[in-house]
Amino acid sequence: MGGALHMTVEPFRAISVSRLAHQLKSEGRSIIHMEFGQPSTGAPAAAIARAHQVLDQDAMGYWESPDLCARIARLYDERYGVALAHEQIVLTNGASPALVLALSMRFQPGDRIALARPGYVAYRNTLRALHLEPVEIACGPETRFQLTAAQLEALEPAPAGVIIASPANPTGTIIPNEELAAIAAVCRARNIAIISDEIYHGLSYVGPTPSMLQFAPDAIIINSFSKYWSMAGWRLGWLLVPEAEIDAARARIGNMFLTPPSLSQHAGLVAMDQTDELEGHIQTYARNRALMLEALPALGLKKIAPPDGAFYIWADIGHLTSDSMAFCQDLLRDTGVATAPGVDFDPVEGHRYIRFSFAVSTPEVEEALTRITPWFAARAVRP
Amino acid sequence: MGGALHMTVEPFRAISVSRLAHQLKSEGRSIIHMEFGQPSTGAPAAAIARAHQVLDQDAMGYWESPDLCARIARLYDERYGVALAHEQIVLTNGASPALVLALSMRFQPGDRIALARPGYVAYRNTLRALHLEPVEIACGPETRFQLTAAQLEALEPAPAGVIIASPANPTGTIIPNEELAAIAAVCRARNIAIISDEIYHGLSYVGPTPSMLQFAPDAIIINSFSKYWSMAGWRLGWLLVPEAEIDAARARIGNMFLTPPSLSQHAGLVAMDQTDELEGHIQTYARNRALMLEALPALGLKKIAPPDGAFYIWADIGHLTSDSMAFCQDLLRDTGVATAPGVDFDPVEGHRYIRFSFAVSTPEVEEALTRITPWFAARAVRP
Repeated sequence: MGGALHMTVEPFRAISVSRLAHQLKSEGRSIIHMEFGQPSTGAPAAAIARAHQVLDQDAMGYWESPDLCARIARLYDERYGVALAHEQIVLTNGASPALVLALSMRFQPGDRIALARPGYVAYRNTLRALHLEPVEIACGPETRFQLTAAQLEALEPAPAGVIIASPANPTGTIIPNEELAAIAAVCRARNIAIISDEIYHGLSYVGPTPSMLQFAPDAIIINSFSKYWSMAGWRLGWLLVPEAEIDAARARIGNMFLTPPSLSQHAGLVAMDQTDELEGHIQTYARNRALMLEALPALGLKKIAPPDGAFYIWADIGHLTSDSMAFCQDLLRDTGVATAPGVDFDPVEGHRYIRFSFAVSTPEVEEALTRITPWFAARAVRP
Repeated sequence: MGGALHMTVEPFRAISVSRLAHQLKSEGRSIIHMEFGQPSTGAPAAAIARAHQVLDQDAMGYWESPDLCARIARLYDERYGVALAHEQIVLTNGASPALVLALSMRFQPGDRIALARPGYVAYRNTLRALHLEPVEIACGPETRFQLTAAQLEALEPAPAGVIIASPANPTGTIIPNEELAAIAAVCRARNIAIISDEIYHGLSYVGPTPSMLQFAPDAIIINSFSKYWSMAGWRLGWLLVPEAEIDAARARIGNMFLTPPSLSQHAGLVAMDQTDELEGHIQTYARNRALMLEALPALGLKKIAPPDGAFYIWADIGHLTSDSMAFCQDLLRDTGVATAPGVDFDPVEGHRYIRFSFAVSTPEVEEALTRITPWFAARAVRP
């Protein structure tokens, strides 16, 4: 086990920022929540209507919806042109337990798992909780904050696995087709298992987002209803496993997690057909993104990752601070705008970054920009 | 790691029985579901009404209800006379991820964890999935199928931890106060961490069920809304951790699982005050239990664990078969009554047991007994 015993699981620091935001709100302050990666919109109206029906008709025992598995399988055909057996879809309580399940299926304690830094805080910590060793690959603006096939090729020894995230959290950057194909090829050659977190698929501002599945049929894919379908608190996600691993995945989930919420499955099935309403959210995000990309450089935030997808802006604030947590707290106390400190996503360079989530309403983005503009202007002139 | 790498996670075989039951039902057969441990009743009416309200008012992002944590903390004062800080309650997507969290917090790969055999299938398999070594203690009728302080005292070397389940699955037996106190004392003396699964608390036919917390303040306690509160498909449970471990537990859940379903938390809070409706379910279970305890001996099922609580009957069928899985399938095909094979709960002796769940309606129990009586009579006269 070696160093594995010394690995600690760290808290998600944005939660402290959010707690402060709620405290300020309870004191009467006006707060704009840009600290968490969740839509401020609710589930599609038709999904909510379906939930009302089911509440009155179904005793809701443990249940996995075969129709929902089949509908999700069809999504892969529609979005990516990949045909699946519906048994390859294993429903989960969101993407988080899906990652636990995937890691527990594929790896043994002590295994080394590569991932991009910056990256979603829970990757690093969930790996540690399962006694896996995160091998963080430093990714800067030169690779759009994404890991590359060349970096994976250069790792010695080869890691047992890699976590791919595209569009990524906290940057929103998307890995292009050619690079995904090259990563898949390196992983095939070096026997590196791929786990691809595709939770932000459907949220793209630069055209379709390819799935790792198109290049690596043996990859395990993670997705959820929390982002595109705007159903974070419904706790519904899935794991897509190769046919050879269906029984293993089902044995594990039947012991470790059981089934996801019954009501959420009924509602989720309906949500998958509400394209007009969901595309409306994306138009809002696109407007919000454009507003921020226009305004932030004028505030001195000129080093910004290109937010191809998701609903984040990863901004370099290194000219203003070397303590992103204190910076977020000051920004929140002074303006009521809550953001996430970069240290959550990058323990090395994150002290000089913050993440804005623009999954709020357009008036909220406008108000946030109005409030932070003089605040940044005042900071910029400090010695 | 030693043998840990060779540990496999087995499927829950009752799922196959249930699948056959649903297939027979789709062919027009009348099926009585006694194979799973879940109430056939729904959530309390007031909880459902609350869910309707919230569906129309709340966008349902990620959320943990402070009011629900406080209400659950109060339950420990009311039921057991134990005062808690509400921060000690960590809400989960049911008891299953609570167990994953507890095991991951307390233990390291390779640690040996004691548990009673027979026991809930997922204990053994979740331990294996997390690379912990199950140390199964054979428990027969002489100890009411529960492990004892003397057995824990005799284990050499001392295990790192023990899972206590009272009332137990599959037997329903309850560990009395004196024995819980003795187990707590042995664990204190030998430095054995206690995880107490109290998911069947509130479902007792022999008086109050003590909590391990009364005897071992450092125990981690698991519970859920799936049984007493009749909300299995709502996926809501909790972990109760000592004050010193609050931060560690919250760091893990914030990375590995995030929050439980928002709607379920709103509904669960209301459910906790619906005592009259919930006690009505227990009266039904008590009637069902009495009917079965009266009828089964006449069918030749005379070796039955005393079902002090929960809603199970663990019956010895060793005079009829040495293959409980085939027996359950035959019983189901011939009578439409679905039961769980003993091999799920006891890999050594379970071939000669089946588990009935009587969490169905009283007319269903009566119908089941009517159907299985001639079936068992015919079997009894076989050579």
